[in-house]
Amino acid sequence: MIEASAVFSSSLDLNEVLDHVMTEGQRALDAEASSVFQIDEATKELYFVLALGEKGEAAKKIRVPWGEGVVGWVAKYGKSVLVPDVRKDPRFYQKVDEKSKFITRSILAVPLIVKGKVIGVAEVLNKRSGTFSERDLEMFQGLARQAAIAIENATLYKEQAELALGAVTSLATAIDAKDPYTIGHSKRVTEYSRLIGYELQLGEGLRRNLEWSAILHDVGKIGIPDSILQKPGDLTPEEWDAIRKHPLKGADIMAPIRLLRDVIPGMRHHHERYDGTGYPDGLADGDIPRLARIICVADSFDAMMSDRPYRAAMKEPDALRRLRELSGTQFDGQVVEAFVRVYKRERIRGG
Amino acid sequence: MIEASAVFSSSLDLNEVLDHVMTEGQRALDAEASSVFQIDEATKELYFVLALGEKGEAAKKIRVPWGEGVVGWVAKYGKSVLVPDVRKDPRFYQKVDEKSKFITRSILAVPLIVKGKVIGVAEVLNKRSGTFSERDLEMFQGLARQAAIAIENATLYKEQAELALGAVTSLATAIDAKDPYTIGHSKRVTEYSRLIGYELQLGEGLRRNLEWSAILHDVGKIGIPDSILQKPGDLTPEEWDAIRKHPLKGADIMAPIRLLRDVIPGMRHHHERYDGTGYPDGLADGDIPRLARIICVADSFDAMMSDRPYRAAMKEPDALRRLRELSGTQFDGQVVEAFVRVYKRERIRGG
Repeated sequence: MIEASAVFSSSLDLNEVLDHVMTEGQRALDAEASSVFQIDEATKELYFVLALGEKGEAAKKIRVPWGEGVVGWVAKYGKSVLVPDVRKDPRFYQKVDEKSKFITRSILAVPLIVKGKVIGVAEVLNKRSGTFSERDLEMFQGLARQAAIAIENATLYKEQAELALGAVTSLATAIDAKDPYTIGHSKRVTEYSRLIGYELQLGEGLRRNLEWSAILHDVGKIGIPDSILQKPGDLTPEEWDAIRKHPLKGADIMAPIRLLRDVIPGMRHHHERYDGTGYPDGLADGDIPRLARIICVADSFDAMMSDRPYRAAMKEPDALRRLRELSGTQFDGQVVEAFVRVYKRERIRGG
Repeated sequence: MIEASAVFSSSLDLNEVLDHVMTEGQRALDAEASSVFQIDEATKELYFVLALGEKGEAAKKIRVPWGEGVVGWVAKYGKSVLVPDVRKDPRFYQKVDEKSKFITRSILAVPLIVKGKVIGVAEVLNKRSGTFSERDLEMFQGLARQAAIAIENATLYKEQAELALGAVTSLATAIDAKDPYTIGHSKRVTEYSRLIGYELQLGEGLRRNLEWSAILHDVGKIGIPDSILQKPGDLTPEEWDAIRKHPLKGADIMAPIRLLRDVIPGMRHHHERYDGTGYPDGLADGDIPRLARIICVADSFDAMMSDRPYRAAMKEPDALRRLRELSGTQFDGQVVEAFVRVYKRERIRGG
């Protein structure tokens, strides 16, 4: 099960800001290397967010336990530390040097503090000329303040993005739950769509739009009366018409949201068929927006795999075979092949 | 009509970052003043985001037309400019000096560029010793890059926050619209709640939670069958029970969203009564969360002012009088007084 927030990565330029700030610090303080650590709240370990200098890449995989080493000490006590000679400081944590093959001589480390809380540590290593001074410390604290703000901003952005997707997911889930046959449907369609997006190597922006489009694809059902949505027997032609309006209704509901403008085509067209006989607009093959072609396969597969009032759920191999049979008529064959490939690989069990 | 996004201001520390970056630039370049401008896309004017130095506050109110003056030129052509003596440069825009009483002698101005697009201009004014050099220009361009990222990040954050609230507003509006008697209800309740929040001088964080709580207060109705929600005649006791579950259902729907934890109490308790006879928990006076007490007044006022199957809408003065009559029994008197005061002042017409 892939978490909803996994691909919804922050697009705030955290690395660029940190890189700029620390490069400046390293240059101004005439240091050989510099790093920024963040604290993993779950394990209470420090991990590298940035490591500049010769062995930076090697260092990045290492984690420092909370309270251990100079940076662990700084994280624990929230105080800056100036270590002119690491051989004389018992707090020095050898393991990073051992693993990275870097030789640390001197350290200047300052806590990154946001709203009174230590969120990480910034350090510069090995002053080339002389030793780190109190003035160096003051200067570096100013830069650390910038780094802390950059990290905090990226965190706030990520939280906000998670809030947006989380809140609509909750509402879409509640709308699905009105019909006992579609409980959890939109979430599963979103998972399938996400897998297809990865398999087709869509860019991050497209994958993000796909995720939104998939979670919202059926919200137009809010506008369909329960009496039709939950009708156990055959539907009249008028009732079918009402059902067929849900992609348009969904698109209308989200139309006012500027940031969702590229999300709406995937919602509106997820019931088009590759041969042009679908709805609402009877679009065919390449004219159907790509995200809609993906959601169509994901949506149909989940429907096949679910019980309906008039039939039982299909077995997995039968549903996969059916997708392939309908390649080129109902579905885009390339999307079906991507889905079958990734589905088998990931062995998703649904739900 | 107050726009939904008006109080949902960015909490990214844009000003702090810009202040830090420009103070550093002004110091390093030995300049008397510095400013950052952003471009108003609608009017194509440049407005001050930051103005440091003696006349900074006076300058801030001024807007510079696109293409005019040195900064207008930089915005238009996306190129840096070094003006050693403004008297000799025909591009110089006198009006800012005239209005701010600052005397500009020399200017170094660079465009703020994000993803190839000019989003603003940063400038330093009046080098104290000598004239701005090509090296100064290079150094300042590095700082301008940081300022550009900070502005871009704040913009992205604001967009994301608007997306979150906008998407749930659209869905809440669609849920309201299932019952012809509640079309637009949640939006109006959110407006009334926002006004009360201002009048009671709640802090920004509380006002934000109030806004979310108000727009979501009735989403639990998604779990009530149409047959009950739209029933024209009297409800049975069982049907009333189902209706009374909507605050709990709404709270349950949003419970998984970590960032909404302080929003949920306002949803759950908006049908509590001040005398303890409300639902779902029979809380009384101070035990009812403050946001819920506010939403309760806003919700009831909108209900009074709307037609119902069994009665016509009340007139405005009658509804306001009724709120006051129920102060202390159904409502928190302080909230009612705040609402009546601000409502009369703002002369809201509803809808």
